Amino acid sequence: MSEREISQAVIGRLPRYFRYLGELRDRGIERISSQELSDIMGVTASQIRQDFNNFGGFGQQGYGYNVNLLCEEISRILGVDREHTLIIVGTGHLGQALVGYTNFARRGFVFRGAFDSDPSLVGRWIRDVQIRPIEEMEEFVRTNGIEIAVLTVPKDAAASMARRLVSCGIKAIWNFAHVDLEVPEEVQVENVHLSDSLMKLSYSIVRYEQGR
Amino acid sequence: MSEREISQAVIGRLPRYFRYLGELRDRGIERISSQELSDIMGVTASQIRQDFNNFGGFGQQGYGYNVNLLCEEISRILGVDREHTLIIVGTGHLGQALVGYTNFARRGFVFRGAFDSDPSLVGRWIRDVQIRPIEEMEEFVRTNGIEIAVLTVPKDAAASMARRLVSCGIKAIWNFAHVDLEVPEEVQVENVHLSDSLMKLSYSIVRYEQGR
Repeated sequence: MSEREISQAVIGRLPRYFRYLGELRDRGIERISSQELSDIMGVTASQIRQDFNNFGGFGQQGYGYNVNLLCEEISRILGVDREHTLIIVGTGHLGQALVGYTNFARRGFVFRGAFDSDPSLVGRWIRDVQIRPIEEMEEFVRTNGIEIAVLTVPKDAAASMARRLVSCGIKAIWNFAHVDLEVPEEVQVENVHLSDSLMKLSYSIVRYEQGR
Repeated sequence: MSEREISQAVIGRLPRYFRYLGELRDRGIERISSQELSDIMGVTASQIRQDFNNFGGFGQQGYGYNVNLLCEEISRILGVDREHTLIIVGTGHLGQALVGYTNFARRGFVFRGAFDSDPSLVGRWIRDVQIRPIEEMEEFVRTNGIEIAVLTVPKDAAASMARRLVSCGIKAIWNFAHVDLEVPEEVQVENVHLSDSLMKLSYSIVRYEQGR
């Protein structure tokens, strides 16, 4: 069972499966058929079976999937069966919002540090994380073996900040700056380009109006 | 030239083209070949030509695309050639961050109102938008012909808030709540599920480590 060749589209759908299955598990549901899951999630049962077949099928046995087992398998594939350490770089409103989400910690994503170049913010607390001067960032990443940097700095600062993070051995950057980063292939990047998302929404509005 | 059958994958790439081409235009560059654009954007030239052919090709004439024309065409397709009015529903840190992005206004997305159920927040200002009581939301949407509601309320409040927005004629919901909304087909929804994005990142970390 190789997971190397799985398409980005399938990977992109895994977190949503994980979310729905986690809710089923929390409600005490032990088994579910692909058809029942299909009804809840609004995707076809054949899509679900196809997606799951990429990972060996997760052992559906006629009477459905074992919800608990499925959650565990998907969490292992997504790498959320273990803790990930994060720092936030840029502690404006967005940075503060992200550190404040208890939901991330519940999934094993734990903020260990926060950094800002604005001296007036240094020393403040966001939940249990104190804001430190940006000059301490590299040393902190090395000393604490931080895996993921969350980049919520302005666009103009993003490229240089990414270079600094790469230089101190960061494994991944979750990038909210409205720019595509250039990093070596060993550094993983996931972009959240909010303007792009908003433009897709306006596209849908316009298309719907023209189609009426 | 029909735009009705264009795949979601192509649509998803349009905002990124728009972003790069806008920067080229701002730098005064008038023409660009698909190969040059390919080098800048890190996608193949044939992908670019294929994507653009969905919209009639945008008139490349051997010596490249007219950057200004291309920007105008893509902005028309994306519906960002006109103003869109927004309200924010839920004015926590994330809501405040979104209202604060001047980048959105520059693209024609203008926040007209902000609403919160917490009386202690009502009356405060986020930039030039004053926070109003949530009870006034429906009337405000109707009176001001608001198109887009940005939903940044907690997960548990999202479904009922979406129903209220649908009932007063909202055209689109930009949903940051970590739940999939059920809305009629005339209401467009674009989700920003941040946990899903973070899980894709941890997937990449794990896969890279296993592949070494």
